[in-house]
Amino acid sequence: MSLLNETHAPALRSWVASANQPGADFPIQNLPFAVFRRAGSDETFRGGVAIGDQIVDLRMAASRAALSPQSLRFAAACGDSSLNRFMAMGPDAWGALRLALSRALRTGAPERELLSACLVPQSDAEYTVPAKIGDYTDFYTSIHHATSVGKLFRPESPLMPNYKWVPIGYHGRASSIQVSGQGFNRPVGQTMAPGKSEPDFGPCKRLDYELELGIYVGTGNQSCSSVPMDQAESHVFGLCLLNDWSARDVQAWEYQPLGPFLSKNFATTVSPWIVTLEALAPYRVPFARPEGDPQPLPYLDTPANRAGGAFDVQLQVLLESERMRSAGSAPAQLSATSYRHAYWTVAQLLAHHTVGGCNLQPGDLFGSGTLSGPTPDQAGALIELTSGGKEPLSLPDGDSRTYLLDGDTVIMRGWCEKPGTARIGFGECRGTVLPAKQS
Amino acid sequence: MSLLNETHAPALRSWVASANQPGADFPIQNLPFAVFRRAGSDETFRGGVAIGDQIVDLRMAASRAALSPQSLRFAAACGDSSLNRFMAMGPDAWGALRLALSRALRTGAPERELLSACLVPQSDAEYTVPAKIGDYTDFYTSIHHATSVGKLFRPESPLMPNYKWVPIGYHGRASSIQVSGQGFNRPVGQTMAPGKSEPDFGPCKRLDYELELGIYVGTGNQSCSSVPMDQAESHVFGLCLLNDWSARDVQAWEYQPLGPFLSKNFATTVSPWIVTLEALAPYRVPFARPEGDPQPLPYLDTPANRAGGAFDVQLQVLLESERMRSAGSAPAQLSATSYRHAYWTVAQLLAHHTVGGCNLQPGDLFGSGTLSGPTPDQAGALIELTSGGKEPLSLPDGDSRTYLLDGDTVIMRGWCEKPGTARIGFGECRGTVLPAKQS
Repeated sequence: MSLLNETHAPALRSWVASANQPGADFPIQNLPFAVFRRAGSDETFRGGVAIGDQIVDLRMAASRAALSPQSLRFAAACGDSSLNRFMAMGPDAWGALRLALSRALRTGAPERELLSACLVPQSDAEYTVPAKIGDYTDFYTSIHHATSVGKLFRPESPLMPNYKWVPIGYHGRASSIQVSGQGFNRPVGQTMAPGKSEPDFGPCKRLDYELELGIYVGTGNQSCSSVPMDQAESHVFGLCLLNDWSARDVQAWEYQPLGPFLSKNFATTVSPWIVTLEALAPYRVPFARPEGDPQPLPYLDTPANRAGGAFDVQLQVLLESERMRSAGSAPAQLSATSYRHAYWTVAQLLAHHTVGGCNLQPGDLFGSGTLSGPTPDQAGALIELTSGGKEPLSLPDGDSRTYLLDGDTVIMRGWCEKPGTARIGFGECRGTVLPAKQS
Repeated sequence: MSLLNETHAPALRSWVASANQPGADFPIQNLPFAVFRRAGSDETFRGGVAIGDQIVDLRMAASRAALSPQSLRFAAACGDSSLNRFMAMGPDAWGALRLALSRALRTGAPERELLSACLVPQSDAEYTVPAKIGDYTDFYTSIHHATSVGKLFRPESPLMPNYKWVPIGYHGRASSIQVSGQGFNRPVGQTMAPGKSEPDFGPCKRLDYELELGIYVGTGNQSCSSVPMDQAESHVFGLCLLNDWSARDVQAWEYQPLGPFLSKNFATTVSPWIVTLEALAPYRVPFARPEGDPQPLPYLDTPANRAGGAFDVQLQVLLESERMRSAGSAPAQLSATSYRHAYWTVAQLLAHHTVGGCNLQPGDLFGSGTLSGPTPDQAGALIELTSGGKEPLSLPDGDSRTYLLDGDTVIMRGWCEKPGTARIGFGECRGTVLPAKQS
């Protein structure tokens, strides 16, 4: 478990002034990673770290020796067009580069002159998916989501008997993961309307988002080996925001008995920035089971996980419709919740994933599953907020939604905040629904 | 659809004498691809084509210009340590290299002298997974398997209402795909015994194989585009044998509602050789639906698919136990069937996979799903052959099996054969169960 150290000190200030603004997502205590280049340029993508409204270009910082000598090979690894090589170097490398950046970006740091030449404004940047994702796994860690969606799909047995024992997950599609800011065409597919005897084929009519966190694997494990709970977090590079777009009508028809397929594989959107577990250390919270629920089996249970295996990440979903954009009005908040309500921790997901011998590789991505909180207004998907499309959600401009319309942009935000501790922001994850290509 | 041409002529003979033996898997009409090196060497892996008991080293053939000038850049692409670059070149490239190899390997070919220096005996070779597999999808295309397994998991509704309309598939784990000849440790995991209120944790007690064909994607498609039926086969590079190892007790407990996860992701074994669709052209058979079954929706239906979208690949599963190995006795056949019984064709799987906009990439792999035939002895998994473990299968040496024991080697073979047409063999796919690491 990553502990507090000098990089977390709330009093630290940066010579990059925008990092010291109250409410900034990227103060010097955060230092998240992305892969970027200047927008519209033919530059190669390379790794960078956010500081205020700037990006430290790590390839340039390495080539100009603008960081401590012992951190330069780690910065150089980040100069690749994906973070996989750096991810594979492990937590000592991640921590060493974080420490070097923290020291070099502090007010009064002697590196300022060299390093300030390595800054690129975020407003000039475009991003790509920050890792080559070999395999993507989506989990189902909100018992609140599992219960309320279960009620809609299977009124007779909303929560499966395995739920409180098994961190339920399934394999997702890696090829269609895209970075925040892109759009995708509304998928077409087969659906079966109630009472009909033959399926329809056409554009999805019940397109939804799912509010999730993404979890990037840093170091992998060999085939036929497993990672025990007390080592699980050392294999995790960091967290991002993730939108697991879902075609509910396609899903309802196709998902039995082998799970979601075309209803999920047309697109998944991730935020560009990966917040490291080390940056999140001040926001650890105890992992506790509700009174009466079974305790996890021993392979999913450690004292450290009970004491601080969960993270209190605040999450928010907003909708920006075509109409709001035309009117110049602000996006409307659809819901807000916290990752602390998840039924399984990051460590438990990783330990469970490998317990049968499945090998993970650097850059692999997990989705947390839709992070609905305990109350109805904390639901992380429209299917829950609208009771399966039966109760439209009113928007501030008088409009309403059951499911997403063409032109809708869904925006997810995440941050950690509490008095006396630096704010750790995730930036945002946004994606736009474009019209279906076929009809 | 690939048509017959000079490379299929049954009368063709090779100057590699072993290719002309009756019953050989790799006559000159086959020419399947693998990635190999000399066993135990530190050579880099590179692509090769099988001819009789030899391998044409395509890297060497390219560097020595031992093939027709117009095919050399295709051979050179096969010199990589995976076939992805060659796969991405498309059917014209695949056909051009096949034609060049067919001509150069024929009796009397002027290339004989140069090319014979590029041969490596298969007995000296070791193989690796022939492509970098970005995403692996497993389908469920045998209605006989779906029905008989469905009976065991869900007696009340064995075949789901979607089965005859949707080519059911789910995403599998790419990282744990291994090549024939390797072993894996029996997985451990959670299982729930009947009548118990808490799950057990330990080694899988119901370890099974699944007889499948693998389908390699050659050329991909862009995100948010789809591949129509009449172009689908042009995106398919070829077929291999595939064993989708399955932990049935883990599967029964974990699979609802999101499908198999740890019960499948510990290992999948593929044969080293990929037989191209072009080589299989003489073995096309009509795709027909049983009387009374619905016809496929228009996006899954073309005249060409009805006329010859299925392939008559004979398949066989054998078991070689520790006891058989000690006694020096031959492996025992467990079942035999044909791919012609599949409910969906290769073209339908690919068209369905992309219809919602999911992008495929060169080297992606599909599993066909367990290829059980219509009669009980044609079942492609022990769960069916033993009625869910209730009726042990007798082996010729007096031993018996419900599920797999440690030390068991499962061998899958595939071939196409009919009078007056060259035999097209797939070689074999073998894997061995090693004891669990934890208990």
